[in-house]
Amino acid sequence: MATRANSVPHPTLIKVDPFKPADVQEGLHNRWHPDIPPFATVKPGEVFKIECIDWTGAQIGNNDNSDDIKNVNLTKVHNLSGPVAVEGAEPGDCLVVDILDVTPFEQMPWGYTGIFELENGGGLFAREFNSKACKAIWDFKGVYATSRHIPGVRFAGVSHPGLIGTAPSAELLATWNKREGELIAAHANAVPPVAFPPEPVGAYVGQKLPEDVMKKVATEGARTIPGREHGGNCDIKNLSRGSRCYFPVFVKGANLSVGDLHFSQGDGELSFCGAIEMAGIITFSTSIIKGGVEKFALKQPIFLPSPIDPLYSSKLIFEGISVDYHGDGKQYNMDATVAYKQAALNAIAYLQKIGYTREQAYLLLSAAPIESHVGAVVDSPNACVTLALPLGIFEHDILPKEEGLTKKDFGQCAIRSDGLL
Amino acid sequence: MATRANSVPHPTLIKVDPFKPADVQEGLHNRWHPDIPPFATVKPGEVFKIECIDWTGAQIGNNDNSDDIKNVNLTKVHNLSGPVAVEGAEPGDCLVVDILDVTPFEQMPWGYTGIFELENGGGLFAREFNSKACKAIWDFKGVYATSRHIPGVRFAGVSHPGLIGTAPSAELLATWNKREGELIAAHANAVPPVAFPPEPVGAYVGQKLPEDVMKKVATEGARTIPGREHGGNCDIKNLSRGSRCYFPVFVKGANLSVGDLHFSQGDGELSFCGAIEMAGIITFSTSIIKGGVEKFALKQPIFLPSPIDPLYSSKLIFEGISVDYHGDGKQYNMDATVAYKQAALNAIAYLQKIGYTREQAYLLLSAAPIESHVGAVVDSPNACVTLALPLGIFEHDILPKEEGLTKKDFGQCAIRSDGLL
Amino acid sequence: MATRANSVPHPTLIKVDPFKPADVQEGLHNRWHPDIPPFATVKPGEVFKIECIDWTGAQIGNNDNSDDIKNVNLTKVHNLSGPVAVEGAEPGDCLVVDILDVTPFEQMPWGYTGIFELENGGGLFAREFNSKACKAIWDFKGVYATSRHIPGVRFAGVSHPGLIGTAPSAELLATWNKREGELIAAHANAVPPVAFPPEPVGAYVGQKLPEDVMKKVATEGARTIPGREHGGNCDIKNLSRGSRCYFPVFVKGANLSVGDLHFSQGDGELSFCGAIEMAGIITFSTSIIKGGVEKFALKQPIFLPSPIDPLYSSKLIFEGISVDYHGDGKQYNMDATVAYKQAALNAIAYLQKIGYTREQAYLLLSAAPIESHVGAVVDSPNACVTLALPLGIFEHDILPKEEGLTKKDFGQCAIRSDGLL
Amino acid sequence: MATRANSVPHPTLIKVDPFKPADVQEGLHNRWHPDIPPFATVKPGEVFKIECIDWTGAQIGNNDNSDDIKNVNLTKVHNLSGPVAVEGAEPGDCLVVDILDVTPFEQMPWGYTGIFELENGGGLFAREFNSKACKAIWDFKGVYATSRHIPGVRFAGVSHPGLIGTAPSAELLATWNKREGELIAAHANAVPPVAFPPEPVGAYVGQKLPEDVMKKVATEGARTIPGREHGGNCDIKNLSRGSRCYFPVFVKGANLSVGDLHFSQGDGELSFCGAIEMAGIITFSTSIIKGGVEKFALKQPIFLPSPIDPLYSSKLIFEGISVDYHGDGKQYNMDATVAYKQAALNAIAYLQKIGYTREQAYLLLSAAPIESHVGAVVDSPNACVTLALPLGIFEHDILPKEEGLTKKDFGQCAIRSDGLL
Repeated sequence: MATRANSVPHPTLIKVDPFKPADVQEGLHNRWHPDIPPFATVKPGEVFKIECIDWTGAQIGNNDNSDDIKNVNLTKVHNLSGPVAVEGAEPGDCLVVDILDVTPFEQMPWGYTGIFELENGGGLFAREFNSKACKAIWDFKGVYATSRHIPGVRFAGVSHPGLIGTAPSAELLATWNKREGELIAAHANAVPPVAFPPEPVGAYVGQKLPEDVMKKVATEGARTIPGREHGGNCDIKNLSRGSRCYFPVFVKGANLSVGDLHFSQGDGELSFCGAIEMAGIITFSTSIIKGGVEKFALKQPIFLPSPIDPLYSSKLIFEGISVDYHGDGKQYNMDATVAYKQAALNAIAYLQKIGYTREQAYLLLSAAPIESHVGAVVDSPNACVTLALPLGIFEHDILPKEEGLTKKDFGQCAIRSDGLL
Repeated sequence: MATRANSVPHPTLIKVDPFKPADVQEGLHNRWHPDIPPFATVKPGEVFKIECIDWTGAQIGNNDNSDDIKNVNLTKVHNLSGPVAVEGAEPGDCLVVDILDVTPFEQMPWGYTGIFELENGGGLFAREFNSKACKAIWDFKGVYATSRHIPGVRFAGVSHPGLIGTAPSAELLATWNKREGELIAAHANAVPPVAFPPEPVGAYVGQKLPEDVMKKVATEGARTIPGREHGGNCDIKNLSRGSRCYFPVFVKGANLSVGDLHFSQGDGELSFCGAIEMAGIITFSTSIIKGGVEKFALKQPIFLPSPIDPLYSSKLIFEGISVDYHGDGKQYNMDATVAYKQAALNAIAYLQKIGYTREQAYLLLSAAPIESHVGAVVDSPNACVTLALPLGIFEHDILPKEEGLTKKDFGQCAIRSDGLL
Repeated sequence: MATRANSVPHPTLIKVDPFKPADVQEGLHNRWHPDIPPFATVKPGEVFKIECIDWTGAQIGNNDNSDDIKNVNLTKVHNLSGPVAVEGAEPGDCLVVDILDVTPFEQMPWGYTGIFELENGGGLFAREFNSKACKAIWDFKGVYATSRHIPGVRFAGVSHPGLIGTAPSAELLATWNKREGELIAAHANAVPPVAFPPEPVGAYVGQKLPEDVMKKVATEGARTIPGREHGGNCDIKNLSRGSRCYFPVFVKGANLSVGDLHFSQGDGELSFCGAIEMAGIITFSTSIIKGGVEKFALKQPIFLPSPIDPLYSSKLIFEGISVDYHGDGKQYNMDATVAYKQAALNAIAYLQKIGYTREQAYLLLSAAPIESHVGAVVDSPNACVTLALPLGIFEHDILPKEEGLTKKDFGQCAIRSDGLL
Repeated sequence: MATRANSVPHPTLIKVDPFKPADVQEGLHNRWHPDIPPFATVKPGEVFKIECIDWTGAQIGNNDNSDDIKNVNLTKVHNLSGPVAVEGAEPGDCLVVDILDVTPFEQMPWGYTGIFELENGGGLFAREFNSKACKAIWDFKGVYATSRHIPGVRFAGVSHPGLIGTAPSAELLATWNKREGELIAAHANAVPPVAFPPEPVGAYVGQKLPEDVMKKVATEGARTIPGREHGGNCDIKNLSRGSRCYFPVFVKGANLSVGDLHFSQGDGELSFCGAIEMAGIITFSTSIIKGGVEKFALKQPIFLPSPIDPLYSSKLIFEGISVDYHGDGKQYNMDATVAYKQAALNAIAYLQKIGYTREQAYLLLSAAPIESHVGAVVDSPNACVTLALPLGIFEHDILPKEEGLTKKDFGQCAIRSDGLL
């Protein structure tokens, strides 16, 4: 007979409260540093769960204006759960991580996508759009998300951790700080900044640490914004539940940390806070391949995607080239980022024809499972990048028709209480 | 009863000989110019075929050295078939083109992928690899390609025209020449060049034209290397047989041209001549949507992909960021092209572990249906781009294993007769 | 800010204890009858959860012998949660049910697949194999299942309710009882029986009912074994989380009931208890289309499958025809069931070549996401049916190789404590 | 340079004229018999082509009435190309056949789907519908088919040989004739017949044979209607171009024959002549695995499907059970064929709601890439079978809508010149 005795739930190694600020909770940290000790330790093969708060630490609410987005404190992000040490892992090994599941908290069946202010966070079109704060709240209905701020769509989540990585060694950390420091120096006063140096303000480690260690972490610790050789904030939507990832190990125990869970995201995460950000639970198991860095020539993680990523075979695909034809018409030299921006702007223009506002379209392309392919990056001077919009996420047929597109009224996303756009 | 009388084959509007140089054949041209008159005219709804020579015009042979690649004459490319006018199309309309099929010639069941010399054509890693000419010959076996120069793989073709577009208006042409001229001026003496200005040498139109028209085309005509607002050399592998594409129309009749057929290609077409280049036959039908440019906000073509693109669900995915960690370690600012290069270099390093040479790996990633996604382009300073290698194309299991990877001897691709690499 | 106040979890309308027998719990029932009143009522559009015990009512344990399978009491099955009435639904309407999610209980991360005894439950090969009780326990690791009783495989669940349906009208119930009674009469004494008449023993409704009503339900209520016009025990694996189903409504309120949750199942559910049976939670929302039965010509439910069903593109496909060539060689007349049995027996023989026992293979084909297609049912006298085995679920490459198949030792599934097979 | 000299086309081993009757052409045969000698011989590894006439031998014309269907001579079918011997193949080996491509003749870009008369061929609903002859002509437009007789749909072909198999041994042939003879004896006078005994009338072998051999073939040769252990007329749509099939070998040389090419087909090939029948060209290569029958436990072919089978992820799925609720309401015992018929009748009723006639719907389900899954075959007494209609093949949105379905006028398929339906 089925009994409680023969039914052993998987243990939760880090527990959080998604409704409390991050900096009063244990097991969290928001900088990368080799001296942050493991908060928990596992054996290879164990299945375990880790709870994560949303990347801002509960700063954003389920409501209908975007003032919280406008005023978000970015020195405190991202709030990561960990580190978790894996017994036996040593530098040069490969840590195999099975991302077995990623789910929201049952008590918090919603998430958000934000457009950040040009001056506070930015995003892919921060300058082009002179971005003001906007947001969309998404309701989680099982495997699907819908939004009262972007009606007319429903899609299955490709849920994943936006941010997951092993701890850097001291040497690797120094490399990061040096190279990013040089970039910052070369672009002083850029708005938004081109990169973020170590910043003691807001630095947090939810463990009792000797003061000097905490100070070291705060002053040297790498910010969590970009992805790097250890993984980190790669925001790869297909590193989703069901995927298997092979990380290089840089410190004893590997010291895996994770956070910034996304219910869904489009390729590129356009608006920066472009995924459907959520608090939730991630389930892992791990194993170690000794000497895996050398065996697999690992300079950065590699992974096997999940068999359950949403499949929408019908797509409308937009092209872009590395000419800013939506702006000043400037010709760039084989720049895939510029090309992707044109593809996205073409998609936004199309979505406006069917009735979405520019802000809704921007949020939708950020949050829905759109696919972006690099078409060609060898046909000088134009890189060509495409953006595929899955047709199955729309309640209505949005295909090009001889009679043109039907424009509906979809309202507007949540904007600032002062009404500025 | 089935009879010849009730069986009407689709007409072939342009016929070519794939074994003859391009510049002795009718119905071809190798520059974009509004004054090139239509070579053929169709009504909307007709199904018709167009034959195409390979993009170099038969310069490359089915043999085992790469001297023909080394010495290729690039002033003569690409050789396009057309233009084909569609009755009733006018500027501002949308030309709907169904790419109904793309096949090689029965008498020429092979194609090639080349790495061009740094000084003559280049490619994504021309500088990094100080590229010398290499090539792989691919044998077409029905829907599959295999290569004696890259043993151990077989894959289904995602056959497509690398180059397809409507003719530019005089105004659009002037815009192209101006912006690209400015880029060239800003990067004088770059090797390989950043862009290609109009070049009378090698210019060709396979029609009887008044001398002044031919001269105008030769001196003003845009080169065919990059994709642009009209389509052109976008090298999008998924614009494949079975896809439907919506082109903006810039001149009366639309004047569609096509060429550079590819049996297969990976996202990015890394090595520049990275697709499996072939001569062959493309089958079309067209329709017109009046005022479609305005209706669909068309700044560049949009398209619906084909239901028969090859499906390989198991993939090994490599990540890259905008740091040149395979080179001098420089930090770039959100540069998706640099990020894609790292992902590709990671994949090449992995393929070398299983026994392919660097050149074979480079050619394979160029030619096989690899998928490249822009992961995130908002996490300053690192863009993250992924490259997915389909596992089903390999004869052997190449997954990461605890015992490491099995290295086999796959020989080498075709190299220069002087043996230089 | 995110707060408990602005975070409203979806309500759970029926709660159960998966470790307690069914017949002491509220909100359950195990017969179909129009007089069973709704246990809960919802409005169209609401998202709500329903908890379900496993189909046997906790009779099967997480252990290593199959005595519980041998002795299972089948008069008590299936234990359904419900009925749930939907406000406004009337006979002739179509009840649209979104199956938003299906998950196991967190405290019970396991399920089972059983081969039932020939004399107690049977299964597709009960007679051929003279079946003795066997079982496999499956551990749920996020989206995946693995089994200590069938090592070497891991697959993503296509989780679904094996049994879901609206309540029959009195008239429809009478039709069922009549036609099935006639079949039983025509096959008296068949082992296993061809069908199951109403059976007062074991009948249960977990609500306080007037005695006469309960007696009516017990004596007239249709057994839950087969699927019928209202849905019921159709065991369609693709009616999974993320799917949308359109049910005909036969009684006021529609009175939806659900149970027999499966973590995974192969087409055909070969061994009868062939899915991975589990207790768990299903999330729904509903809507009503007035007069939908007439609008859509609904004689039985229709549905839209889920975009997140597992995708394993590489498959090894076995064929079968309606000749019992694994048995006495008899030629059947266009019998797709016989054909499917041959395909399955071919697959079992193949799996035995790689080291699985016949029992393990039978259980695996029952539980894993195998696909069965009807190939042709018009080529007299042979129906042809195929069974596709997804290759990606195996840890090792099982493709046919020139050197033959590698046979490993995978042990055995759980068998009877007396060792009989 | 590319030259005719270095471009070697794949050889065509059997050439046919699709506009001539079969029985005047070489390299064809229409019975299975071990004494039919190979018409051509290949070495393992060679790529070669085989031309095939349509299964009726040009009896059906591209016109607008169905009199040719009504009067079709079925003693002459199927017309197979072959046999082709493979050097080195011996009984007990496995013949690996790569189906590299399947295409129509360029000069015959059309095919047909027919409903046969109840008295001459029948079909799945021959009795239910009291079938009169109907047909639809399909135009091939590259990878797509459309029909003037069934407007509003377009789909990509999953092109395959309906019929492909190795030659039987004398012993196997005797087994077939015996078991089918017994079935015929048990159902004497059935209309349509349950099976077809050897029939000298119409028997044909397009080679010069000694008279006694030809007589033996004619009097003993198995008819080609059903699929059997050697493959044969399995009509499996996914045994398509790009697939790899493993056949058991029964005679020296294997003696592979092929015919009945289909441009497309739905699972079940409902109307018997339900595929899009065509004449065309099939491209093969082969290899031999010694002792493969034993190595892989081969009782019937197994195969690996193609990566380029059309992918239509959005589907509307119809269910059916083994109760004839569209007819007399009879309860069948776990009969998957009856269940599939109900699912198909449900789909036909739905298609009639959107405006197709019953005949058009029947033809469409036969010809389009519909998918039929065996849901459950263990829930006594009802087998449950599903039929999935791909939504992407329709020009209009046919999903269930609150307002009901929009009925259009799609005319009618081709019917008899006397107008009888």
